[in-house]
Amino acid sequence: MPTHPIAFLGFGNVGRALARLLLRKQEDIDREFDLQFCVTGIATGRLGQWIDPQGIDLDRALTHLEADQPFPGRCDLPIPDFFAASQAQVIFESIPVNYETGQPAVGYLRAALEQGRHAISANKGPVVHAYRELTELARSRGVQYLFESAVMDGAPIFSLARETLPGAKIEGLRGILNSTTNLILERMETGETLEDAVSYAQAIGIAESDPMGDLDGWDSAVKVAALCTVLMRVPLKPQQVQRRGILGITPAEIEQTRQLGQRWKLVCSARVEQGVLKARVAPEMVGADSPFYNVSGTSSIVTFETDVLPALSIVEGNPTPETTAYGMLADFIHTLRK
Amino acid sequence: MPTHPIAFLGFGNVGRALARLLLRKQEDIDREFDLQFCVTGIATGRLGQWIDPQGIDLDRALTHLEADQPFPGRCDLPIPDFFAASQAQVIFESIPVNYETGQPAVGYLRAALEQGRHAISANKGPVVHAYRELTELARSRGVQYLFESAVMDGAPIFSLARETLPGAKIEGLRGILNSTTNLILERMETGETLEDAVSYAQAIGIAESDPMGDLDGWDSAVKVAALCTVLMRVPLKPQQVQRRGILGITPAEIEQTRQLGQRWKLVCSARVEQGVLKARVAPEMVGADSPFYNVSGTSSIVTFETDVLPALSIVEGNPTPETTAYGMLADFIHTLRK
Repeated sequence: MPTHPIAFLGFGNVGRALARLLLRKQEDIDREFDLQFCVTGIATGRLGQWIDPQGIDLDRALTHLEADQPFPGRCDLPIPDFFAASQAQVIFESIPVNYETGQPAVGYLRAALEQGRHAISANKGPVVHAYRELTELARSRGVQYLFESAVMDGAPIFSLARETLPGAKIEGLRGILNSTTNLILERMETGETLEDAVSYAQAIGIAESDPMGDLDGWDSAVKVAALCTVLMRVPLKPQQVQRRGILGITPAEIEQTRQLGQRWKLVCSARVEQGVLKARVAPEMVGADSPFYNVSGTSSIVTFETDVLPALSIVEGNPTPETTAYGMLADFIHTLRK
Repeated sequence: MPTHPIAFLGFGNVGRALARLLLRKQEDIDREFDLQFCVTGIATGRLGQWIDPQGIDLDRALTHLEADQPFPGRCDLPIPDFFAASQAQVIFESIPVNYETGQPAVGYLRAALEQGRHAISANKGPVVHAYRELTELARSRGVQYLFESAVMDGAPIFSLARETLPGAKIEGLRGILNSTTNLILERMETGETLEDAVSYAQAIGIAESDPMGDLDGWDSAVKVAALCTVLMRVPLKPQQVQRRGILGITPAEIEQTRQLGQRWKLVCSARVEQGVLKARVAPEMVGADSPFYNVSGTSSIVTFETDVLPALSIVEGNPTPETTAYGMLADFIHTLRK
């Protein structure tokens, strides 16, 4: 059996969770899918690159990172040259991106695909900015570009539509797709101020140091644009999503709503109306009869309206970095399973 | 392109909904999957069989049924001979079965598979009584035995696990899988008696004339046994499921629970405890913080606990006979897609 060489582009929380998951699942994957792999390249932001076409000891790489020690024989090649030197058949990309442009991930994914390597990405930026281009490029090279972890962590969303809903047409969707705002709104229901709720979300590692991308609905807009682009086959840019974040909701409104037995949720939605796809992100009051009501904390939900199933919802509870890593592992197995 | 001959074994609500769905989706399926089919056999309970290897006009068959007119050239062959005469490559089975034995569906599915025909079944009985045998028989003949519609209508449950969760291990599950009891409990919350709620469920075609299989939890037990058998790979008979139905719940208890802001739900669950799979069906009080709280009417839910995704739920809202038919259509495309 051939052993598949794989490489990591980005080795932060997600990359390392994937490394640990691959170590834990290696034997299962071999037994169940007859699929063997070895890591031949790791490119980090801080510690440079480790390249070894004979195979890198992943445990040792994780130890280096935890001790903040430089990799042995550190390289700093341009990324396309790093791919080539690693000889990897599959690239796992999980680097920081600019959501206005999807860069630098779009360029790196393009390079990987042009070199005939499968590209598995955890980023939504490239999906909204270059889905069609990257997918067509992948097809022309006989490889795949997959990105299950780009929306709702590792919950099967893109693969659900692709693999389990053949012949179905997704006509609309509604969802809660941003964990940070969902957690903040919930904390505010207990009387916490917005500032304190943001600080809490930052302290537990959910919110970024600049939380505006979450609070103003931008992160949700990118996600709904990604879902529309891929699942509804309508290319949509985040700028085309009508968008309102949670900053306009006052503590008094939250309390009034709570007394009515309702809760505020930041809801993403998209629907074809008179031939035109309309997508929006806006706070909504939802009652206890809504499936959105008890999507708590960092959990998320999406409900698809299709021409064959009136309302199919997927709910992901209590995600962790390993959840996101699992989405990439699932993509990996999809790519290489017989 | 070869045209695939297909046949219907059973042409009741589900079979006819499938026929209408196939007519509606025929062009889409051809365009998207390059998959052409023609119906060469229909076996009904009342009107006998229609067999024509050159192709039956489905619209005409539906018209005959609606007018209760005998099929032209009516046959009444033994079922294995019906399969052979139809020359069908794929059999769609949706006949009434005995849930204690899975018969006569198990025998018919076995005959179809032995003859080298794909078998797509809407029944859960054969899954709990003969999953391993039928699956191994299918493999040995190079065909498939699929049954997406056996649990939760056409929502992707079996295909979700098979296609979108590679390498994941399902360690436990919880669900609301019986529509009739869910609807009855909801009606009783408004003060309706059990008897009136049952009558209502019968009037809208959800409950059978003998509703005991729903009320005593047997239908739920068969479904949880099917999920355990296939998804947790532990063969489990419905008799091994610890089972309590909804008949013990009094109107007074329902009212008290409602006043506490909770609701009664008939919950199915399964979990490996100390190496042994324990499955049960029992009424539970659930609060508004539970994802089960707002699974209303005939909707259903299942939550999977896996070793990689802590809690992944699928919710199916407002199913119709066409929803069940879609599960069979999805199985059909899975079977023949390139």
